[in-house]
Amino acid sequence: MRTIRGVAAKQIIKGALLKENAEEQVAEHVAQGLVFTSLRGTDSHGIRLIHHYLAGVRSGRINVRPSYSVEKRMPTVAVLDADHTFGHASGMEAARLAVEMADEYGSGNVAVKNSTHFGAAAYFAIDIAEHDMIGTSYTHSDSLIIPTHGKRSFLGNNPVCFTAPVKGEGPFCLDMATSIITFNAVRQLRERGEKAPENVGTDQNGIPTTNANEITMLLPVGSYKGYGLSLMVEVLCSMLTGMPYGPHISKMFENLENKRYLGHFVSAMNISAFIDVDIFKERMAAMINELRNEPPLDPAQAVMVAGDPEKNRFSIRNIEGIPLTENEFKEFEVLNKKYQLGVEM
Amino acid sequence: MRTIRGVAAKQIIKGALLKENAEEQVAEHVAQGLVFTSLRGTDSHGIRLIHHYLAGVRSGRINVRPSYSVEKRMPTVAVLDADHTFGHASGMEAARLAVEMADEYGSGNVAVKNSTHFGAAAYFAIDIAEHDMIGTSYTHSDSLIIPTHGKRSFLGNNPVCFTAPVKGEGPFCLDMATSIITFNAVRQLRERGEKAPENVGTDQNGIPTTNANEITMLLPVGSYKGYGLSLMVEVLCSMLTGMPYGPHISKMFENLENKRYLGHFVSAMNISAFIDVDIFKERMAAMINELRNEPPLDPAQAVMVAGDPEKNRFSIRNIEGIPLTENEFKEFEVLNKKYQLGVEM
Repeated sequence: MRTIRGVAAKQIIKGALLKENAEEQVAEHVAQGLVFTSLRGTDSHGIRLIHHYLAGVRSGRINVRPSYSVEKRMPTVAVLDADHTFGHASGMEAARLAVEMADEYGSGNVAVKNSTHFGAAAYFAIDIAEHDMIGTSYTHSDSLIIPTHGKRSFLGNNPVCFTAPVKGEGPFCLDMATSIITFNAVRQLRERGEKAPENVGTDQNGIPTTNANEITMLLPVGSYKGYGLSLMVEVLCSMLTGMPYGPHISKMFENLENKRYLGHFVSAMNISAFIDVDIFKERMAAMINELRNEPPLDPAQAVMVAGDPEKNRFSIRNIEGIPLTENEFKEFEVLNKKYQLGVEM
Repeated sequence: MRTIRGVAAKQIIKGALLKENAEEQVAEHVAQGLVFTSLRGTDSHGIRLIHHYLAGVRSGRINVRPSYSVEKRMPTVAVLDADHTFGHASGMEAARLAVEMADEYGSGNVAVKNSTHFGAAAYFAIDIAEHDMIGTSYTHSDSLIIPTHGKRSFLGNNPVCFTAPVKGEGPFCLDMATSIITFNAVRQLRERGEKAPENVGTDQNGIPTTNANEITMLLPVGSYKGYGLSLMVEVLCSMLTGMPYGPHISKMFENLENKRYLGHFVSAMNISAFIDVDIFKERMAAMINELRNEPPLDPAQAVMVAGDPEKNRFSIRNIEGIPLTENEFKEFEVLNKKYQLGVEM
């Protein structure tokens, strides 16, 4: 196992994108979003994706010099046309617009259309919470989850993300997929030759299997609950934007020349419109610390709140670097060399 | 098994509340909310609760003649002080305010404080969707769910409810608790002498058990996901309102003289601010009908979308009436007599 410092990974990613003619702001948000995500330990949505993204830039899927257009029919709603740029960039532009509206009116809601993969939802919602607002972010994605009682996938593993600021530490952040386990976890089981838990995934015929090699589709968390949450996200990201839904969304890792036509949704709510922000943040800290001090069932596993594992990993990786396999490390060396970036790894 | 027609149940509930000196609007919303909920099949939150509520009115917990006050610091946010009235009434007042703000500004968000039990979350969010808006409603509740890795309950079984209008039928409605099964389901298992599924509930020491008689606490759906959603609801209902949280909330069925100090949260988003409402509703219908036509794994169990079981039950019960046990039916007869309502049951 090798490691790469966050700052070096960011320089390489941003440098490569700039050499591919990306706008400064686009390159910055992609690099920052991916590194932030890897530092928090969400490796499936972190820096490893840059190679896939660069292929998408070269194939014409992703537009690195977008002309955004914003349609605003009412004071607290906007629809942002992302012009097929990186979701990391359009999502942050949407977050900026939502915060701006919430500053003036108390809340802001932005639907993004004609976008591409936006990485981890937490990146946008945490940014909103850092403005002392309650943030949400959602994206839909290509078909992977089987609806309850179904036998083939329909909706994507659409994430739900909710954030709120806390006194004395980073924001509370719930960022959850609507499957029981992620497909990335299935891949890891395959690599390790391990079995999957029961009733988390199915084979190509929709039959649940514990054979990780046979799993091609995932089951929703809590049956109709995870499925329902996934459908909620589709309403926000497809129905409000006019983008395709579920099985009609082009696949992330296939036909890289195809545009994605993805939608995202972000919202900001101004806490000071409800209550004194300091009181809110102090009570948040009191509540989550009370939870962390709850007696654990197994003394070896403390009670945490959503986002704690990511905060813990961030503290470690911010010092020790982001772990990469030997092969992944080499791929970053190749980028560094190919784009003549001269970053000290 | 007996049945009571929805219209008769409503007359008895409203009549009893009016005789207890309730304001017309309060009595109307409680009666309408409970009957609507029972007709949709959510018996745990339906008409059976009226006896508990009437006891709460007589004990001084619930104020049937509230003086609402609304604090509005910004155009799309309001905090409604419910003056300890029925949550059914304060929740509908909040929904009205949210829709009003969304009509003008595109979105509206209302936190309710000093409220009491509001019944089923769907009642409010469906009302919002019927205004061609996207609705949400949330409430916190007293401690019942064990946080992941914990051994005692902390948060309540806080519901998440999301609605959106659909062409040609009632709104899409996801209304989900954040436990795997409800405590009402545990009670039913006890009555039937049946075992609970594994890992849905624990005994008083936090040890998972399948003995329904020993279950006193519930486990969250999808482990940290349901727990995280429950915490999200607590942020909206307690942190934004200043109301107590989790274990500090007074118990619904204990010490009926205690005020509840509950918070709720509702929001409305104006669909026409994003996209033509007809297009939205047509695409909603297309998507959910496509899902309903997905091939089922077991031909006997069709694929549905969230809210379909409730719509189906409503169609049946609206004609056949609400099923009650012999004892429950008698309790309604007692009310009818006690309050000299003369309703034809």
